[in-house]
Amino acid sequence: MSEIYRSTTTAPVNIAVIKYWGKRDPKLNLPTNSSLSVTLSQADLRTLTTASCSPTYPTGDTLLINGQSQDVSGARTQACFHALRELRKDIEYEKPEVPRLSHFPLHIVSENNFPTAAGLASSAAGFAALVRAIADLYELPTDPTELSRIARQGSGSACRSLFGGYVGWERGTRMDGKDSMAFQVAPASHWPDMRALILVVSAAKKGVSSTTGMQTTVATSTLFPMRPKEVVPRRMKEMAKAITDKDFETFAKVTMMDSNSFHASCLDTYPPIFYLNDVSRAAIKAVEVINAAAGKIIAAYTFDAGPNAVIYYLAEHEAAIAGLFKAILGDKDGWENERGAAIQANAAAVKTLEEEAGVVIPVIKEGVSRVILTGVGEGPVKSEEHLVDEQGQVVSR
Amino acid sequence: MSEIYRSTTTAPVNIAVIKYWGKRDPKLNLPTNSSLSVTLSQADLRTLTTASCSPTYPTGDTLLINGQSQDVSGARTQACFHALRELRKDIEYEKPEVPRLSHFPLHIVSENNFPTAAGLASSAAGFAALVRAIADLYELPTDPTELSRIARQGSGSACRSLFGGYVGWERGTRMDGKDSMAFQVAPASHWPDMRALILVVSAAKKGVSSTTGMQTTVATSTLFPMRPKEVVPRRMKEMAKAITDKDFETFAKVTMMDSNSFHASCLDTYPPIFYLNDVSRAAIKAVEVINAAAGKIIAAYTFDAGPNAVIYYLAEHEAAIAGLFKAILGDKDGWENERGAAIQANAAAVKTLEEEAGVVIPVIKEGVSRVILTGVGEGPVKSEEHLVDEQGQVVSR
Repeated sequence: MSEIYRSTTTAPVNIAVIKYWGKRDPKLNLPTNSSLSVTLSQADLRTLTTASCSPTYPTGDTLLINGQSQDVSGARTQACFHALRELRKDIEYEKPEVPRLSHFPLHIVSENNFPTAAGLASSAAGFAALVRAIADLYELPTDPTELSRIARQGSGSACRSLFGGYVGWERGTRMDGKDSMAFQVAPASHWPDMRALILVVSAAKKGVSSTTGMQTTVATSTLFPMRPKEVVPRRMKEMAKAITDKDFETFAKVTMMDSNSFHASCLDTYPPIFYLNDVSRAAIKAVEVINAAAGKIIAAYTFDAGPNAVIYYLAEHEAAIAGLFKAILGDKDGWENERGAAIQANAAAVKTLEEEAGVVIPVIKEGVSRVILTGVGEGPVKSEEHLVDEQGQVVSR
Repeated sequence: MSEIYRSTTTAPVNIAVIKYWGKRDPKLNLPTNSSLSVTLSQADLRTLTTASCSPTYPTGDTLLINGQSQDVSGARTQACFHALRELRKDIEYEKPEVPRLSHFPLHIVSENNFPTAAGLASSAAGFAALVRAIADLYELPTDPTELSRIARQGSGSACRSLFGGYVGWERGTRMDGKDSMAFQVAPASHWPDMRALILVVSAAKKGVSSTTGMQTTVATSTLFPMRPKEVVPRRMKEMAKAITDKDFETFAKVTMMDSNSFHASCLDTYPPIFYLNDVSRAAIKAVEVINAAAGKIIAAYTFDAGPNAVIYYLAEHEAAIAGLFKAILGDKDGWENERGAAIQANAAAVKTLEEEAGVVIPVIKEGVSRVILTGVGEGPVKSEEHLVDEQGQVVSR
């Protein structure tokens, strides 16, 4: 019998409504401000990761993502491996009878169920799954909060993907980062009607990496200091209350304002960083027209470090929002699933948009390459769909 | 003999390097922060205005701009007329022998030498010329500083067009606005080599008006308060010193950062205001590549409330900057004059741009409709080219 140990988990993508931008400690990935996100459904977007280890593996940890071998020598991956092995060693020290897994090479195999070309930040789901899978493999008694401190060191926003629903990340004040961790504001079941429509924009070229970009902002923007000092602390409270109260209008307004504030900080960086393009601006205008037509805020845009628009709305307004975009983008990928098929193209909404800001319709039509229909979802889930077989071989799929 | 009194003046356009955005008093046009601009040469961009008055004119003041009759009942035009008439009345009170011009209807006729379609803010030159022409007509003993307080009430940035060269506008702190006026930082002759290349971008639609936009920023942006509080006061000092020292690199860096800061404030407004588009961003990238290739900052972009790029540079770098854009935009209007004809299309610079950021070349080519080659210039100049003849008739041209 081969001594192969393995554990598999899924982890979700999250999209922040209060943005993480700026590190107070780049080595420990400690942020300049707290942030808050919605965890998205893993039916639509998830990473599946198997962590395995064995005394029979050749020396050296390995990581395979979507069939591509990755460099594991980077400080971030190493920080995660190291922290998890230390926790395992504590168990091995307490219970000499358990196998000494911490000494075996780790083989990690990971797959995303969404196209890499979508330009969605996969590092959050990736590091959350990696940390959760190794923690399960090592049978660590840690809760998500504890693991979030470790995942944070791999990729800041990964700490938020260890929880489902509505998730905060407390910046903390300690130098060692012990108090900088994620927490659940509310589970998905508290406000399950939250939907997200992602407009994937075909960008000509990848922009500035977020790690480089955020530190240039911290170093050069003269407007940015207002975010950690005043703007974000106030918005964290407003947003947590909006979620508790299921107050969509406040949720939406704070989401849009914070996205704008983040991109304004990028523009105030020297040299300036642009993630929004004319397609992004057209999506913003479409959301403004939708809200004006409804007479209240029923849709909220937000943009991460790229031109893709994420539009949050409640299920009851699917016709007004997803219906409008289906009418414009019905020939693009992303409407094939059951939910997508059920959405009626909303010709009346297109007519209103045409009247109010007709110029944006061809811009959206030409600039969006696919859509992703999703919504709030659960945190990591243990899986038996292992990507490493009982002989330690990568499962070919 | 007909009793027609007239006086004619020209006034220049100015383009700010430290931006005016936000009013602390919308009625008096008092700004939230000081600003600083370069007055552009009137050979390329100017307003020509004749102010005339006569007891024989029918009742009511009139204003004709580029052959179009304008409404003069607006508070801003009225504020200018009223302030100038009051100063004239003081003279008439002191010297009963002078004609009582303050009681006669005013007929103002104004023409720009640049296409309205260029989307250049003509209100600064327009109100500066209007105020200067009426002041000359009334033989007011006022200097440009005094007149700048009046022109400011017509259009904020008009106060800076009463001076040539490098011009500041002090925000002032008084409620009545008496200390909010323009002043000359340095005459054009101090640093005459300053050139400006304007890339006129064919925008699909006029954006948010600046008056509405800036007050929405003041009311909603949470980052903007840093500008009046810290950012602009520091930059005003840095910029004045850079001009005194003829330190182009500092001049350029502060110019670019302040343009970015202004547009970041617009983006942080709710709802967000966008003036920059993908063509503007391509122009920014081109300037970044020019500077990187030169190994120092030889060009500075700045953008007002629209997508047009204004690029400042020194005459010695004409080949590197204007030459690059001539190679890309040589078939567009604006190169016909003597200076434009003398510029060689710089193929080597295009090659560098192609290598570093080739994607921007077609964006600039397709998005820029014309160029304007100009540079630092003088303030208003009295003219005998009257737009009203000796019989009080508008001169047809």
